[in-house]
Amino acid sequence: MPVRPENVHQAALLRLLRDGGRSRAELGDDIELSRSKLNLELDRLIEMGLVEQAGLAASRGGRRSGMVRLSPHMRFVGIDIGATSVDVAVTNGELEILGHLSEPCDVREGPVVVLDRAVDLVGKLREQGLFSQLHGAGIGVPGPVSFREGVPVAPPIMPGWDRYPVKEAISQELGCPAVVDNDVNLMAMGELHAGLARQVDDFLLIKIGTGIGCGIVVDGKIYRGVSGSAGDIGHMRVDDQGPTCTCGNSGCLEAYFGGAALAREAVRIAPRSPYLSERLAQVGHLSAEDVAEAAALGDPAAIRLIRDGGRQAGQVLAGLVSFFNPGLMIIAGGVARLGHVLLAEIRSVVYRRSLPLATGNLPIVLSELGDTAGVIGGARLITDHVFSAS
Amino acid sequence: MPVRPENVHQAALLRLLRDGGRSRAELGDDIELSRSKLNLELDRLIEMGLVEQAGLAASRGGRRSGMVRLSPHMRFVGIDIGATSVDVAVTNGELEILGHLSEPCDVREGPVVVLDRAVDLVGKLREQGLFSQLHGAGIGVPGPVSFREGVPVAPPIMPGWDRYPVKEAISQELGCPAVVDNDVNLMAMGELHAGLARQVDDFLLIKIGTGIGCGIVVDGKIYRGVSGSAGDIGHMRVDDQGPTCTCGNSGCLEAYFGGAALAREAVRIAPRSPYLSERLAQVGHLSAEDVAEAAALGDPAAIRLIRDGGRQAGQVLAGLVSFFNPGLMIIAGGVARLGHVLLAEIRSVVYRRSLPLATGNLPIVLSELGDTAGVIGGARLITDHVFSAS
Repeated sequence: MPVRPENVHQAALLRLLRDGGRSRAELGDDIELSRSKLNLELDRLIEMGLVEQAGLAASRGGRRSGMVRLSPHMRFVGIDIGATSVDVAVTNGELEILGHLSEPCDVREGPVVVLDRAVDLVGKLREQGLFSQLHGAGIGVPGPVSFREGVPVAPPIMPGWDRYPVKEAISQELGCPAVVDNDVNLMAMGELHAGLARQVDDFLLIKIGTGIGCGIVVDGKIYRGVSGSAGDIGHMRVDDQGPTCTCGNSGCLEAYFGGAALAREAVRIAPRSPYLSERLAQVGHLSAEDVAEAAALGDPAAIRLIRDGGRQAGQVLAGLVSFFNPGLMIIAGGVARLGHVLLAEIRSVVYRRSLPLATGNLPIVLSELGDTAGVIGGARLITDHVFSAS
Repeated sequence: MPVRPENVHQAALLRLLRDGGRSRAELGDDIELSRSKLNLELDRLIEMGLVEQAGLAASRGGRRSGMVRLSPHMRFVGIDIGATSVDVAVTNGELEILGHLSEPCDVREGPVVVLDRAVDLVGKLREQGLFSQLHGAGIGVPGPVSFREGVPVAPPIMPGWDRYPVKEAISQELGCPAVVDNDVNLMAMGELHAGLARQVDDFLLIKIGTGIGCGIVVDGKIYRGVSGSAGDIGHMRVDDQGPTCTCGNSGCLEAYFGGAALAREAVRIAPRSPYLSERLAQVGHLSAEDVAEAAALGDPAAIRLIRDGGRQAGQVLAGLVSFFNPGLMIIAGGVARLGHVLLAEIRSVVYRRSLPLATGNLPIVLSELGDTAGVIGGARLITDHVFSAS
């Protein structure tokens, strides 16, 4: 296993350098340490091979301060296991993606098969010469997780994964520390590190895809709730008369606007949509992506479908805004690719229904990270772990 | 102004002692300080008059350790300003109530009148000989607050209070540090210190009274959101067809189940309820308390009203449980006195509609603190402030 920081000061310095190389003087501004103690800890980190010198900074008026940065040999991996795909990326210490591979993969094939695929993809990135040793891996799965134990807990769409030791398996396979979290939490951490939430302490990341979930960030950290299921908003109620949901209740948000609901609705409206009817005839089924495509071509029935779904999602999200008073709400996930029609509808409902005080300074935006949010978030989560005093 | 701790260690020791006197050895178990440093800081706190010796503890096998406790002269005040009443209590350092006064008081009379009343009540407690000097005051008001500035922000039911310098006014009048927060947040802090939430880090306190609000506790601290309006759940949507709310939307929780809604419904059902019709004839109007009284006498129409309201509240709370995954949900406030009929209905909806993983270990309970939750919470909030390194 790779070396870890020896104390809280070294850990704090590593976290600061993860967010960008800087001069010793700048580090001194950001951390409560005397100059001599700061240099002592930095020198020790250099000795341990975790940090290196990088020339001199521009003068701030006096003697020029030495630049330092994380070792360029540092490597992390983010693994984002979705319902129907697996994404793997390798990053440097600053969490810049050096290589990213993605494959279709059905999570229902179970942990042995799916984790094998993920490890294979990591192996391919190794063969590309991107790394020899990994410093840590962060894994996301599409279901509730006990973060402390690193195991999925009663995940509804992941047969065979309940309490499977994902953290331990990946840690052993890759020979580095690992953490496991819900995939939506990974996306939220990705937005915090590299996306639109970089300056925001308290925000919500809404993922609308096969399922619907929410990543909750409080004070720059994921809030997971007491059983790790916080943010599971797919089964929040839109109304009592709605379609029956997979959970057995009626009128859940997911029953209206999840991937399966949209695919079903697409088939229902196909007779009124030239694009959808042709596509249905060609491939025999329809998906949320087909609805997005039809809407992009100006199909009124498809646009109507998105607006209706956006309104229902907006009603649930308006409640969350009143409750949580976030500084930012980011919409992401496959269905989010429905784009600005969806965004406009969600905004309209939230700005009308939530408390004015809560929406006064609230941006509601589409994620700009796309598929990279999860893998960057995975890398970010594991650096929070390894850049802490053990 | 009274003396404050000089460093983070002294502050941590004072917070530990607030939760109960203990021996030096026990303090050593709870804080990361060497024995000599711990005794140094304790001796300094004794010198400053904040802490005192209190005999010897029972032996833990070796030399008996000295007991210490907060100075018995330490006094805090909690001021809980409601829509129609003001409560004032004086506590010792352990936040035990030494005296508590309550008066009807209409918050719409404005800050000058209402704060005068509160200061008068503090004066009465002073005349009773309960204190000579105060170490701090925590004030709650029934509306959103900028906690940092100590001022109400656009509070809907408090005309004249918008941005009034409540913290500054009270601090000057009482000659001690003060903090101001929303009244529901105060109640949550009261439950955390002295109520059912003592061992719970993440919980929700639901206040159902004239208005409906929620105190959100994350990791033992109030979560206030970016504009201080977090927990304002009264205008979360039950459905689109419901009664028009004071906020201009339809079907808000408060329009169904706030104090005003219950009073209106009570008049509507009075013809079918012997108790309510007699009471209405006597006093000319009805309140939530009358509904509670009728229900306690077994009046079917009143019980039905409570069950309907509880179901609607339950639908909103079920969503919050899925989203927040709390370790405990406490129901409090005037309408909560509707008691176990209400509790049963809320439980029934939440346990049916929320995610099983989120409700597996979730107690839903009625507050046992009653009117003291707010004032204890106020005292607790100000101790969190003065028992911190300034």
